[in-house]
Amino acid sequence: MNDIRAILFDVFGTVVDWRGSLIADLSAWGAARGLTADWAGLADAWRGAYAPSMDQVRRGVLPWTILDDLQRASLRQLLPRFEVPEPDAATFEHLNRVWRRLHPWPDSVAGLQQLKRRRIIAALSNGNVALLIDMAKFGGLPWDFVFGSDLTRHYKPDPETYLGACGWLGLDPAQVLMAAAHPSDLAAAKRLGLRTAFIARPLEYGAAHKAEDGSGDWDFKVDSITGLAERLDS
Amino acid sequence: MNDIRAILFDVFGTVVDWRGSLIADLSAWGAARGLTADWAGLADAWRGAYAPSMDQVRRGVLPWTILDDLQRASLRQLLPRFEVPEPDAATFEHLNRVWRRLHPWPDSVAGLQQLKRRRIIAALSNGNVALLIDMAKFGGLPWDFVFGSDLTRHYKPDPETYLGACGWLGLDPAQVLMAAAHPSDLAAAKRLGLRTAFIARPLEYGAAHKAEDGSGDWDFKVDSITGLAERLDS
Repeated sequence: MNDIRAILFDVFGTVVDWRGSLIADLSAWGAARGLTADWAGLADAWRGAYAPSMDQVRRGVLPWTILDDLQRASLRQLLPRFEVPEPDAATFEHLNRVWRRLHPWPDSVAGLQQLKRRRIIAALSNGNVALLIDMAKFGGLPWDFVFGSDLTRHYKPDPETYLGACGWLGLDPAQVLMAAAHPSDLAAAKRLGLRTAFIARPLEYGAAHKAEDGSGDWDFKVDSITGLAERLDS
Repeated sequence: MNDIRAILFDVFGTVVDWRGSLIADLSAWGAARGLTADWAGLADAWRGAYAPSMDQVRRGVLPWTILDDLQRASLRQLLPRFEVPEPDAATFEHLNRVWRRLHPWPDSVAGLQQLKRRRIIAALSNGNVALLIDMAKFGGLPWDFVFGSDLTRHYKPDPETYLGACGWLGLDPAQVLMAAAHPSDLAAAKRLGLRTAFIARPLEYGAAHKAEDGSGDWDFKVDSITGLAERLDS
């Protein structure tokens, strides 16, 4: 595994805690305005709308649309359902940008810093470039590069996303490791010849929800990004 | 100018000293092998081949070709002309990758770090993504993003390069500042509505060569990236 030259990271759930961050951010926003709502339910429903909205793009029902815009359309439908009064346009945009204010898991920054010393580390995300740049600045994620989905205008698990990243890096897929908390992401990468690392994030969907299945045949299985760094540098 | 949200930097000559770095790198390589040659002449000739080779792509004479490959073709022609014995394939590749081992000007890293605190800083270069990533790791350039020419498959000053960067950043051209040591680069950006900063690099082509003309009508004229940071933060 000494020939791994670059590591591509899924971001939402793998590097950052989208659910905890959304609940904390929305709750604080509501509390400052005297609003109560089922913020956890809203967070889960918003995330629940994520895959179906991207699938509409992947199947050609919608033309290419960046994640910011998909999330905005979902939020517009969800706020009334959760009985949150319609905010003004600037506030609505602030809320939609909560996906740029997601906190890294406790091990993420230290693990990425260690991995970066000897390899290229990059996000490979369904987020768009601007979202990923802002998120990196917010959380201190030391990416060498962010492969936003708007570079290929494809969402994972379309092959164009994984192969596009390898192409721009000038590397063979076998020199590239895909790291994710989601077996579906790893399976797509593996089919294309990338190496794979499963990072368990049992709390991604909350303590009451079932964690992702880590039983697949991956090159690495770890509990943290620091754990991945230890395995690769040992 | 408080609405400048992102700064795009030309890289070769503006952020890194390509000529001094090439001469030092090639001289050291030659000295270790007992080879003498006009390394400064080779550096200048190699850089001299840069614009004509990109223009062949820009005019459609050549299909899209990344800078790494254009530089390789130029080097293959130049080595015999400078009477450098043909090296083996791995050594030739090492030499061609000298463009990834360019040293920042003394003010570059500190200036970029300061500018990065309050804005997005990104390379907007004719180099390809992989080259720019390696160069950033070599020199400690703290980019938020690198807009390699292989993202748009266009070379500057094609409008697609400047407008592509603004589009991916989700910003209007007027919110974006183009910083370069080359008036032609700034003129192209200005025509598209970007703000402009001329950074004087009088030694880019060596002390014996004429410096670039800094007399144009640019929003900022400074002598260093730290100077630009002071102007923007004052």
